Amino acid sequence: MRKPLILVTNDDGITAPGLRALISYMKDLGEVVVVAPDSPQSGMGHAITLDSTLFSKEVVIDPDNPDIKEYSCSGTPADCVKLALQVLLQRKPDICVSGINHGSNSSINVIYSGTMSAAIEAGIEGIPAIGFSLCDYSWKANFKTAERAIKQIVKEALLKGMPKGVVLNVNIPKKTKAELKGIKICRQARANWKEMFDKRVNPMGKEYYWLTGEFELLDKGEDTDEWALSNGYISVVPTQFDLTAHHVIQDLNSWNLNE
Amino acid sequence: MRKPLILVTNDDGITAPGLRALISYMKDLGEVVVVAPDSPQSGMGHAITLDSTLFSKEVVIDPDNPDIKEYSCSGTPADCVKLALQVLLQRKPDICVSGINHGSNSSINVIYSGTMSAAIEAGIEGIPAIGFSLCDYSWKANFKTAERAIKQIVKEALLKGMPKGVVLNVNIPKKTKAELKGIKICRQARANWKEMFDKRVNPMGKEYYWLTGEFELLDKGEDTDEWALSNGYISVVPTQFDLTAHHVIQDLNSWNLNE
Repeated sequence: MRKPLILVTNDDGITAPGLRALISYMKDLGEVVVVAPDSPQSGMGHAITLDSTLFSKEVVIDPDNPDIKEYSCSGTPADCVKLALQVLLQRKPDICVSGINHGSNSSINVIYSGTMSAAIEAGIEGIPAIGFSLCDYSWKANFKTAERAIKQIVKEALLKGMPKGVVLNVNIPKKTKAELKGIKICRQARANWKEMFDKRVNPMGKEYYWLTGEFELLDKGEDTDEWALSNGYISVVPTQFDLTAHHVIQDLNSWNLNE
Repeated sequence: MRKPLILVTNDDGITAPGLRALISYMKDLGEVVVVAPDSPQSGMGHAITLDSTLFSKEVVIDPDNPDIKEYSCSGTPADCVKLALQVLLQRKPDICVSGINHGSNSSINVIYSGTMSAAIEAGIEGIPAIGFSLCDYSWKANFKTAERAIKQIVKEALLKGMPKGVVLNVNIPKKTKAELKGIKICRQARANWKEMFDKRVNPMGKEYYWLTGEFELLDKGEDTDEWALSNGYISVVPTQFDLTAHHVIQDLNSWNLNE
């Protein structure tokens, strides 16, 4: 039987330690091809490159693993997936995994996440897809504790198949192996960012801003990803890309729009 | 009674004719403040600016309307909304409208849309929000035919309030006033883009790509935005930013993840 083809991508760029960790776990499960941005793309949401050109080239990042083909791409994570599927891969991948992101993509962060946009792009194209994020922004974060869980989730996805129209958003708390309690299927917690803009003046006297903020959790449910993460569980949120709020269509039909 | 405060933004940039049209319609309904990107941001999805600085300045684009404050911003549409709410506006807006986009944001395009990301950002912050798009990419598109419908939708939103966790994605077909049949509440059609990459070689011999593609409608339902648009209706899709696929949580709980 042919080994499953696993497309690996991310948003932190092709040299990020989180990507290197994910590649090393995936090569135990199948044939790995990497197509990842040539520079960090955090916060890119579901951006795609429409108004400029895309460059891509085969690269060797890890000479110890010559079997793994790797391509860097000048575009966004969604661009990487599109380019992989249409141009770079010889056959349709059996699964696409994105990450491991350096930092959380739980709750409302899924909307801003380049990691998840890659997974969603693959999902739109009908490919089972999973985004992985570790709740630790450090470049030296310890990805090793999550190896077993990540492999188990990918194995199950390959075995059971992904529900139609859904990709998985997996977040891993910053815990030791002993502290990790297990894996929980969750819903996305309701939360938002309380933005703050740090206003400064540049040497030429022009004002500018840095976007900063505080995460504001508004949701005390124990079935949420935030609850799982703060209680030592890996959270798995099934994430859809049909954004229709079907439950309010009836209400809106009472609006006076066609008098 | 104080007039409603209307925040107007877009993704085509502060000088785009579609934005100017929307401003002119909104000034009949309330006090207008404009915060829009200083350059086109199409396809930006829900990108935000994390790794660089944001510039913003008050500008005068339309000297005939000195009452309307306008700010340009160096960031993405989502950045514009964040900056407006936290820094530029004196009070919370009663509604945020984004557009009128030059080109469709129906169906799966909502995911890539800068226009809709601005509306969604406002929605996350608890502000009623609507994105408007005209299915005509031309810079000389005729926005006038949709004036009455756009005003009616905004008036109803101000009157009835927006359902919680929902923003509206409004698309307007390219039709004459006589051909327009009315406004329909719809669901997002299932569709995707069949990408094609146009491969070229630059003068230095380096290969590069342009992303192009064909829209592939997979959904023959008559309750979709695509059906409405191709039958002469303005489509209104309630769009949510909780991406949880609640209906598959039970299924995923049968996966073997914690043996």
